[in-house]
This record gives sequence, structure tokens and C-alpha cells, in this order.
Amino acid sequence: MKLLYEGKAKQIYATDDQNQIIIHYKDDATAGNGVKKGTIENKGILNNKISALIYMYLMKHGVKTHFIKELNERDQLAYKVDILPLEVICRNVIAGSAAARYKIPEGTKIDQPIYEICWKNDDLGDPLIADNHALAFKLATKEELAYIYEETDKINKLLIEFFKTMGINLIDFKLEFGRLKDGQIVLADEISPDTCRLWDSQTNEKLDKDRFRRDLGNIEEAYHEILKRLTGK
Amino acid sequence: MKLLYEGKAKQIYATDDQNQIIIHYKDDATAGNGVKKGTIENKGILNNKISALIYMYLMKHGVKTHFIKELNERDQLAYKVDILPLEVICRNVIAGSAAARYKIPEGTKIDQPIYEICWKNDDLGDPLIADNHALAFKLATKEELAYIYEETDKINKLLIEFFKTMGINLIDFKLEFGRLKDGQIVLADEISPDTCRLWDSQTNEKLDKDRFRRDLGNIEEAYHEILKRLTGK
Repeated sequence: MKLLYEGKAKQIYATDDQNQIIIHYKDDATAGNGVKKGTIENKGILNNKISALIYMYLMKHGVKTHFIKELNERDQLAYKVDILPLEVICRNVIAGSAAARYKIPEGTKIDQPIYEICWKNDDLGDPLIADNHALAFKLATKEELAYIYEETDKINKLLIEFFKTMGINLIDFKLEFGRLKDGQIVLADEISPDTCRLWDSQTNEKLDKDRFRRDLGNIEEAYHEILKRLTGK
Repeated sequence: MKLLYEGKAKQIYATDDQNQIIIHYKDDATAGNGVKKGTIENKGILNNKISALIYMYLMKHGVKTHFIKELNERDQLAYKVDILPLEVICRNVIAGSAAARYKIPEGTKIDQPIYEICWKNDDLGDPLIADNHALAFKLATKEELAYIYEETDKINKLLIEFFKTMGINLIDFKLEFGRLKDGQIVLADEISPDTCRLWDSQTNEKLDKDRFRRDLGNIEEAYHEILKRLTGK
């Protein structure tokens, strides 16, 4: 298979169909824009499964995505998209960079979710931008931005409910969107403990990549716990 | 007169009418959130005059402001407002912090203006925020934000034309808005070479506070030049 792209946690391979790609999930983990590096045993297997389950739930509820199907333990088939150079961060509770940036205690509740967009640009450190920057720098059109915010709001509501039934508070998460060949914008990239903050509803125990970022231990166990709650097994 | 507030470049005094205040313009200049300090001779006199002329032009074109009248060389009478904790930055050409933050050469033209909002918070260094932060942190209501963007767009168009007739390119500027006693949002604070980037249309010579920030010399002369072009004298 021809490697098209290698990211921090995934590889993208070409298929015989030029409109489809294979996403291969690695065990590599990075944090702080690549400053901290390591591996989390079986992370690739767990995130492949977790992300597939979340995508299938979202698609069942009408969200358009790049996902086609799981192929095996570490591989997914997906439609090829041009990823928009934006990270959409959805915050339901203040944590992580927002807590640091605004000096607000982690865990502070907010009355309404915050949707942030960051310019995916390693050289600049993925800075927060306003909608106007995205338009002026031609990162997305006005219509695409409106659609992305609408979808993010829909996905947030769906995921809050989804995780709630498993005893998990969805604190915040990151989304990426891509453009299909025909121009349609769809949800892309993974949704997993790598890209979400997931706290146990009872104990507030962190069940996500913060265990790696902050050296909290029991990292693989946390990812396993999320998969266990998703599958009920 | 009772001093109500002292800022970096101005003092605010009470008047006999509790709905009105006196704004006193000082010669003090600061840059980099107060890191660089100095004085620019006669700046208070020049900015009082310049800001009054700009406000009168905007009000003639329907912009609602806090301004009542000039009282003397350094003092203006204005309606008392609660200043919203937001700085609205309007960019027509990339310069200053945007050039640094996004590694874009100063002077780069953009197809559409960028309106940024920053949280006025010295402790945080006045960080750029998205609209959603302003709402979640209760810095302004959704309706107030919409009004502020609408007014900023109107003011930008008016000021571009105004300065153009004087051979000046309006590169970027900062606005502040305040809430009158009855809740109405109005334009407040000064508009002057302290708060705008103004480049000579022919030579691109900087006629604004960047001469102080960057030690370019002829600082007072630049402010004089702006007043000269505004008054035609």
C-alpha cells in the first residue's frame, strides 16, 4: 500500500479506489505539539475501535462523515478528503489550554458550550483564531464555517448524551472536517480519548490522553475503560 | 474634580451631572501592555483634538458615541458608560501583532477586513478570544456582540474613506464600546494615532504610535501631521 501521509498517531494509505483511503492507527502518542513523545500500548487498536463506534453512532443520527468501515484491528476505510486547516475545539467545561489561557480553574462549568477554531499550522503552534481570520486567510468559506459550527453543535449534543449513558462527562473535544471530492464538508479524523476529555461522572477520574500528558499512570487502562463502557463488555 | 479612574493615557473625572464625565488626555505613552513607558510631548493636546474631530465625523454619519464636546485643550465631556471588557481590533492590512502571530509580512493586504475581539484583562495580557468566549464568560450578550460588529463595520468603512481623502491608509485600529445607563451600547474611548495605524498613502510612512513603540523618531511630528491633515491647516 502507498503511504500518502503520516501523522502523529495515524498513517494514511492509498487504495485501488482513488476516492477512498485506509487509516492506520498507531500506538504513538505525542503531547504539547510534539514536545512530549511516547507510545501507549494497544492505543491504535483501542482508538480504531472507539472511533469507529462513535462514528457509527453519529452517522446513525444523521452526521455526515468520511467513515466507511472498520477493516481490521488497526485499519479503517474512509472517503478521501482534503482536511480543512482548522481544529474545532468544543468545550462544555473549562479544562486544558482554556484553563491555562484564561486562568480559570479546571472543571469550571459554563452556561453554554464554547466552540473555538484554531489554525492547524505547526509553525505557528495551531493558534486560536476568530472566524474573520479563517475567512481572510482563506482557510474556509463563510458557508463552510457556518456548516461546521452547526455540525459541531449537533455532534456535541449527540456526544454529551451518548457518553452520559455510560457514566462519562464529555468535558471537551477536538473535531476536524474535510472536503469530499464534490465539495461537501464532512466530519473527518478520529474521535477517541486522544481527542476528547472524558471524566467519570461519579469520581471525575480522567479517562483520556491527559493521563499521558500529565503522567497520571494507568493510561492504557483508561482507554480500555472507555471501550468497555462503549461496548458494554 | 473627583478622579474616577486613571488609565495609561487618560484620566476620567466626575462632573456635577452623574451621567457625564470629563476625559483628560495625558502625554504619557505606553506600549507592550505597559512594558515600555514614556511621554510624547503634547500628545494629550493632539489626541484630544484628533479624537474629537473623528468622533464628530462619525456622529455626523449616524454612529452613536459617548462624546458630548471638547471642553479645552486636554479635556472632553462625555456620557458616563460602563466600558465593555472587550477591545475590538479592526484590520484592513496585516500589521503589528497579527503580522507577528501569524508570521505574515507587515503590509500584506487582505480581501476583507478582520474584526478581532480581545478580552480586556491585564492579568491575561488582553488575549484574543472568539465570540463564544465572550458569551460564555459573560463579557457581552449575543445581541451586544452583533451590534458591536455591525457598528465596527460601519465605522471602518467611514474611517477608511475619511482618511483616504487626507492621503492616509487606515491599516488597523482599536475600538472600545460602553453601556450607557439605559443599556444602549455606544462607541467610547479615543480614536487617535495611539489607537490606529495610519500610513501615508504615497510613502507608507508611519504616522502613529508605532513611531514610539519601535523608536522610529519624529513621534510628536507624526501626531501633528495627522492633526494637520484632519483640519487642513
